[in-house]
Amino acid sequence: MSRVVVLNGVNLGLLGDRRPEIYGGTTLKEIEDGLRSEFPDVEWEFFQTDLEGEFVRRIHAAADAAGLILNPGAWTHYSYAIHDALEILSIPRVEVHLSNVYRREEWRRRSVISPAVDAVVAGMGPFGYRVAARYVLFGSRWDLR
Amino acid sequence: MSRVVVLNGVNLGLLGDRRPEIYGGTTLKEIEDGLRSEFPDVEWEFFQTDLEGEFVRRIHAAADAAGLILNPGAWTHYSYAIHDALEILSIPRVEVHLSNVYRREEWRRRSVISPAVDAVVAGMGPFGYRVAARYVLFGSRWDLR
Amino acid sequence: MSRVVVLNGVNLGLLGDRRPEIYGGTTLKEIEDGLRSEFPDVEWEFFQTDLEGEFVRRIHAAADAAGLILNPGAWTHYSYAIHDALEILSIPRVEVHLSNVYRREEWRRRSVISPAVDAVVAGMGPFGYRVAARYVLFGSRWDLR
Amino acid sequence: MSRVVVLNGVNLGLLGDRRPEIYGGTTLKEIEDGLRSEFPDVEWEFFQTDLEGEFVRRIHAAADAAGLILNPGAWTHYSYAIHDALEILSIPRVEVHLSNVYRREEWRRRSVISPAVDAVVAGMGPFGYRVAARYVLFGSRWDLR
Amino acid sequence: MSRVVVLNGVNLGLLGDRRPEIYGGTTLKEIEDGLRSEFPDVEWEFFQTDLEGEFVRRIHAAADAAGLILNPGAWTHYSYAIHDALEILSIPRVEVHLSNVYRREEWRRRSVISPAVDAVVAGMGPFGYRVAARYVLFGSRWDLR
Amino acid sequence: MSRVVVLNGVNLGLLGDRRPEIYGGTTLKEIEDGLRSEFPDVEWEFFQTDLEGEFVRRIHAAADAAGLILNPGAWTHYSYAIHDALEILSIPRVEVHLSNVYRREEWRRRSVISPAVDAVVAGMGPFGYRVAARYVLFGSRWDLR
Amino acid sequence: MSRVVVLNGVNLGLLGDRRPEIYGGTTLKEIEDGLRSEFPDVEWEFFQTDLEGEFVRRIHAAADAAGLILNPGAWTHYSYAIHDALEILSIPRVEVHLSNVYRREEWRRRSVISPAVDAVVAGMGPFGYRVAARYVLFGSRWDLR
Amino acid sequence: MSRVVVLNGVNLGLLGDRRPEIYGGTTLKEIEDGLRSEFPDVEWEFFQTDLEGEFVRRIHAAADAAGLILNPGAWTHYSYAIHDALEILSIPRVEVHLSNVYRREEWRRRSVISPAVDAVVAGMGPFGYRVAARYVLFGSRWDLR
Amino acid sequence: MSRVVVLNGVNLGLLGDRRPEIYGGTTLKEIEDGLRSEFPDVEWEFFQTDLEGEFVRRIHAAADAAGLILNPGAWTHYSYAIHDALEILSIPRVEVHLSNVYRREEWRRRSVISPAVDAVVAGMGPFGYRVAARYVLFGSRWDLR
Amino acid sequence: MSRVVVLNGVNLGLLGDRRPEIYGGTTLKEIEDGLRSEFPDVEWEFFQTDLEGEFVRRIHAAADAAGLILNPGAWTHYSYAIHDALEILSIPRVEVHLSNVYRREEWRRRSVISPAVDAVVAGMGPFGYRVAARYVLFGSRWDLR
Amino acid sequence: MSRVVVLNGVNLGLLGDRRPEIYGGTTLKEIEDGLRSEFPDVEWEFFQTDLEGEFVRRIHAAADAAGLILNPGAWTHYSYAIHDALEILSIPRVEVHLSNVYRREEWRRRSVISPAVDAVVAGMGPFGYRVAARYVLFGSRWDLR
Amino acid sequence: MSRVVVLNGVNLGLLGDRRPEIYGGTTLKEIEDGLRSEFPDVEWEFFQTDLEGEFVRRIHAAADAAGLILNPGAWTHYSYAIHDALEILSIPRVEVHLSNVYRREEWRRRSVISPAVDAVVAGMGPFGYRVAARYVLFGSRWDLR
Repeated sequence: MSRVVVLNGVNLGLLGDRRPEIYGGTTLKEIEDGLRSEFPDVEWEFFQTDLEGEFVRRIHAAADAAGLILNPGAWTHYSYAIHDALEILSIPRVEVHLSNVYRREEWRRRSVISPAVDAVVAGMGPFGYRVAARYVLFGSRWDLR
Repeated sequence: MSRVVVLNGVNLGLLGDRRPEIYGGTTLKEIEDGLRSEFPDVEWEFFQTDLEGEFVRRIHAAADAAGLILNPGAWTHYSYAIHDALEILSIPRVEVHLSNVYRREEWRRRSVISPAVDAVVAGMGPFGYRVAARYVLFGSRWDLR
Repeated sequence: MSRVVVLNGVNLGLLGDRRPEIYGGTTLKEIEDGLRSEFPDVEWEFFQTDLEGEFVRRIHAAADAAGLILNPGAWTHYSYAIHDALEILSIPRVEVHLSNVYRREEWRRRSVISPAVDAVVAGMGPFGYRVAARYVLFGSRWDLR
Repeated sequence: MSRVVVLNGVNLGLLGDRRPEIYGGTTLKEIEDGLRSEFPDVEWEFFQTDLEGEFVRRIHAAADAAGLILNPGAWTHYSYAIHDALEILSIPRVEVHLSNVYRREEWRRRSVISPAVDAVVAGMGPFGYRVAARYVLFGSRWDLR
Repeated sequence: MSRVVVLNGVNLGLLGDRRPEIYGGTTLKEIEDGLRSEFPDVEWEFFQTDLEGEFVRRIHAAADAAGLILNPGAWTHYSYAIHDALEILSIPRVEVHLSNVYRREEWRRRSVISPAVDAVVAGMGPFGYRVAARYVLFGSRWDLR
Repeated sequence: MSRVVVLNGVNLGLLGDRRPEIYGGTTLKEIEDGLRSEFPDVEWEFFQTDLEGEFVRRIHAAADAAGLILNPGAWTHYSYAIHDALEILSIPRVEVHLSNVYRREEWRRRSVISPAVDAVVAGMGPFGYRVAARYVLFGSRWDLR
Repeated sequence: MSRVVVLNGVNLGLLGDRRPEIYGGTTLKEIEDGLRSEFPDVEWEFFQTDLEGEFVRRIHAAADAAGLILNPGAWTHYSYAIHDALEILSIPRVEVHLSNVYRREEWRRRSVISPAVDAVVAGMGPFGYRVAARYVLFGSRWDLR
Repeated sequence: MSRVVVLNGVNLGLLGDRRPEIYGGTTLKEIEDGLRSEFPDVEWEFFQTDLEGEFVRRIHAAADAAGLILNPGAWTHYSYAIHDALEILSIPRVEVHLSNVYRREEWRRRSVISPAVDAVVAGMGPFGYRVAARYVLFGSRWDLR
Repeated sequence: MSRVVVLNGVNLGLLGDRRPEIYGGTTLKEIEDGLRSEFPDVEWEFFQTDLEGEFVRRIHAAADAAGLILNPGAWTHYSYAIHDALEILSIPRVEVHLSNVYRREEWRRRSVISPAVDAVVAGMGPFGYRVAARYVLFGSRWDLR
Repeated sequence: MSRVVVLNGVNLGLLGDRRPEIYGGTTLKEIEDGLRSEFPDVEWEFFQTDLEGEFVRRIHAAADAAGLILNPGAWTHYSYAIHDALEILSIPRVEVHLSNVYRREEWRRRSVISPAVDAVVAGMGPFGYRVAARYVLFGSRWDLR
Repeated sequence: MSRVVVLNGVNLGLLGDRRPEIYGGTTLKEIEDGLRSEFPDVEWEFFQTDLEGEFVRRIHAAADAAGLILNPGAWTHYSYAIHDALEILSIPRVEVHLSNVYRREEWRRRSVISPAVDAVVAGMGPFGYRVAARYVLFGSRWDLR
Repeated sequence: MSRVVVLNGVNLGLLGDRRPEIYGGTTLKEIEDGLRSEFPDVEWEFFQTDLEGEFVRRIHAAADAAGLILNPGAWTHYSYAIHDALEILSIPRVEVHLSNVYRREEWRRRSVISPAVDAVVAGMGPFGYRVAARYVLFGSRWDLR
């Protein structure tokens, strides 16, 4: 059974409450429930933290998983520590952003994380997590889904 | 019946042949066939061009479609003309890149198009088009797919 | 009889429909009609295109006109091709923008075209075309109008 | 009777004498006379100063005028004080430059004033003032002139 | 009874010992005592941490307080995570720096936090906390103190 | 009896009228009255000017005062002349901004004045002047107020 | 028989007429004739266009030629589309500029095309095309010419 | 007996496993053992953490040690918090990097930590720690080792 | 009899008092007396002002003098108004700085005035004025002094 | 008999040995022999040095030659001294690079020398010298070779 | 017997006299004696020069040595010539700086040499040379020293 | 008897011949003769070289002179080696430029040397050397000349 790790970073514990006009009203729990029910055979591991160091350790611990889905929140824009943690992995890893970070403040347009992931999804809201799940489970091949 | 427009820009006609180690071996035709068979009820409109002006006109013509999926190729990085054409639309529109443009040359890390779309998918290969299709058809709501 | 060329570039065919809160509700046709009726003795040549190359060729063809009025739309901000085409001409040429491009996005504040024209008018809406018409017809002299 | 304020800034008192190959041979007095004779029903208020503070105060005093035409000279490129004074006004205001500032030194290509005006005219010589006069008197509507 | 949260960030636990020529000899404890004795009716909540994640969580927990006073130390200059946490709040929040950060190293002159607070006080030493306290308790109105 | 100088710079004479959504409805006169009534034993000297040179001279004249409170308005962002005038003084001096200049236009985020003052207060509206008054009168010591 | 493709881009159709003090008086036709007569055994393919998209397609079509000589005109400085088209090829390709682009405007000093070609010749006028022809026909070996 | 503190930061717990082609195959434990056996009279204190705040606190706690050796990993490039913690210390402190950070990605070429240490060693692999140990124990004098 | 104009700008009235460790203890009066006694046949015109506009007007009034010596103080670094006033003149003009502005703050290293003068002297204290006097009186010829 | 000077700069004495995958296996001697045998009537002067000053002096000494061919090696990217030496000459001069410097490190993409030469050839290996020889001997005219 | 080359560049001949508060009082001769006595079996080759070209040639001549230790002095910050000379070598090479160049002037923080060496030591004074010696002799292995 | 050293750097040996419209027609020999005859009691030491290293050594050798006058030519803009050599000296030293370097190419506007000299003279032609001579001989005192 595949194990997939889903990591949410700083400020994402407030999802659903936090600026719903930008981030929407869905909570992390609902996203988790959605993924579990859609892919019941996957061994899901969900984790949210506001501590960069815990986030990094969870990335380390994902080394033997089937895939990694991560939304680092604002760390996206400065945490080279997360970049380096990701660079070590050889499993598929997807960076997810709920909002389209490229049309907000200038500093949100640059991710220091992106060069260390396989794919990026931004602006699709909670659906981005499902997209990422499929990608890490099945790769980019067309015919398996 | 929903009409969805899929626009591929400059150099993408060579897909399958062009640097397969980066862009993969799938052709545009295969992507088109895949989308048609997966969503047979959608009125699909596929178009590829190497002329920026034709690309822009097709964006104009998509104003009353249900959604727009576009991969502008290298125009992504300088064509404010495409930016402005997209800005006029009010339908859902998704920017797709086959490769993870954020880990290649520096100039590929900035898209002048992104501030005028709803969502961005990069690095998922052909699967990115399917993701985009679902997004423009069903929005970011979790429960409809 | 003087011949004056009026070139409108990318996305300007949608004028009247496109973001009227910024660009106003006047169409290119109305601008053309206005100029023709105000200056009936001028041989007017109007052209709009979304293809940079056609725009460039029309600039070439204006070499022996009495003047050139051009609104290159978003090309203003990156098309050195248009810059070079303009640099060849020795007739009066005016760059027109309907909106005040200097108070919108940062990238709109710089025109790569301006160093190759005689004058720039921005933010006056359709009236800018009339201003440009008078300038290319009568020059900057005070007493002829 | 409409009152229109015309402000000329630093070094513009020398107009006619100052580098005529760039700024032309017309004096401010001739510009004033021209506007007065062309629009005799307007209550014209002309003012030139080399003191930024006086220029700012005259902008304040224009708050209830029908329009403001200003050529701030070199202040254009650094005086945020003038920017802020303009930002307070709600009347039409036009920035005029006699020469095409966009094709001279690099620092002349950026105006810190432009984001606080409605329209900009550059490179039309004295005719730019007439253009501005018409714009502030009649707006951007096509049919009134 | 009003509840006001006072958060001190990284390295501030050493206050009094740390570079007293810059930061002065007052300790956090003395600042706390001073605020408690000056405003005995306020429910004060003081917290210092060197962990960005704990700091962020405390900001979250201040959502229903009457006000937030924060000195993020060096995080001021790179922690977009703290910026985003602050952006969620709707209560008054003041950024305090003991030293005048604008006349030290170049990198200290820019705060990534400031766009997400209501007010900033820098260079007033411990007195800055009292200023902030009054501001969050009484607002910017003149007559209540 | 202590003498404290309060200097307000360009455009601040309009306070109360000017963009009240940003700067509030309080006038300079009300600020002056408030300070006089709160600190009746201080010899207050208030001055507003739109002329940079007069502002500079008043800074010179404050050399033997007990303190200097200044709000240079937009000069904050380019007047090195004011910087140099401040640098000469050895009395306490505080830079006050009514609005939080750090969350407005990019150019407002940098003060060329700040390296020459002791402290900065921004975003506290008229209350910022009272804060500054206390600081210059009593220093940063905790126990005197 | 070797086939060599020579592509001339935007504004180059005017060669001979256009700013002869910079670009010289030779026409494209004369360059073509010169190459044909010098290398009569080569299957020459000449093409000039002002449309970026046509230029790109011709680059695609050169994939099986013996070599590609291209002068993209002003596209040199912004067309990443041409860069990407060139990157696909494995044949020898040379970028030619008639003038020494490195001693003209600042923006002409950077070519976005150069990283995707084998060699660059600038400032040699029409002779640059002959140089390029020899290079693509014989490579960099010394002894064959 | 001298006490020397050795701090290893984010991602360094994986040393030996992590990208051995760059960082080598030696583990932190082996480095610790090496230092202990080489300098048996030193009271060694080793600590690795992925939490910036814990790292900072350990720097605080080293204030009365004989020396500090630190490898902050990717924090090197953005953690001004670590910079400030180091700035407080007056003991010898050495920044160690296993790889030559100056020949990798551009962002790795700048350390925000270096201005707050006495010396920097990069690219010597585990041997860098021994170098640092000797330096903090004996200073830069030539004759003691 | 030659007329030479000596203009001193903002903050220079305090010379002698102002930061003597940088600017020295000589006053403007002493400089004036020195020049008058050394060159008694010259019609000297000395002027100091803190108002940029007055400074500009005095530059205008120097148009028919034999030479202009100016020390604009901090205006040196931003006043394009002074640049433009100088550009109009055809008489010899020298920019004088008492201190070596090139080894102080970064912003003092750039003069926006220098491109509009003939020569620059910096760091020679009051002697710089004598140097400038000789230069404007005798030109750069070697043999006349 | 024409005299042509060929100058090779720093590190070029190692040609043939130095990184042959980039610079090829041909030596300077072979290049010299090639040129001598191809153009036996030319008075060839070859010189290689690793000393910038000697290189500059040889440029001076070429003032009366028929042409100058130079490959300054890495000096290309910073030696304004060579720029100035070249600027003095009025003979034809060509800058040669063996490799395509525009597709290597960022700093190699900019030549400070190019604005002072007539033409640039890069990426053609040893053949570049022959190209340059022909250019300086015959100019850019088409028909003489 | 191993041969190790130690090269000291510009201004380093003055070591011991030059700014001892920064560079210390040890001379190059003392460093040489120290290395010779510590490693008597090594064939040491010491060289100091103020001529960049001689420095480069000595790097060339070190190609078959066991290792290279170099302190290029101020050339560190601009001499791409030295970079290229180093890039050719395949022996171990270490860049040594006596002072911590990263906490001095901004321009000293960037070395153009570092990408072409194996390791960098800065701020350890003369001890840095011993460190470098051991590194080039024994590599980065832990157990041999 | 005072000894004064006058150093002229790269390309200055050609003075008189080199671009006389910029640098004038005076030779170094004439400058030397002029200084010798004007100050016959000074022990003059003149030196010109095109080798940076020789220039540096002559600066070293000037350590016990009464003053140093130097014109480094184009080295001014990149030679940190010269900067460091100058920084060692404690005698008066003046940087001389014949032309006004601040109104030529952008790169000439910045001197990396200036922060290490006492004074700078630019644009006064040969007279600049006399100015410098007086300054190093008599200092900035007013009354000695």
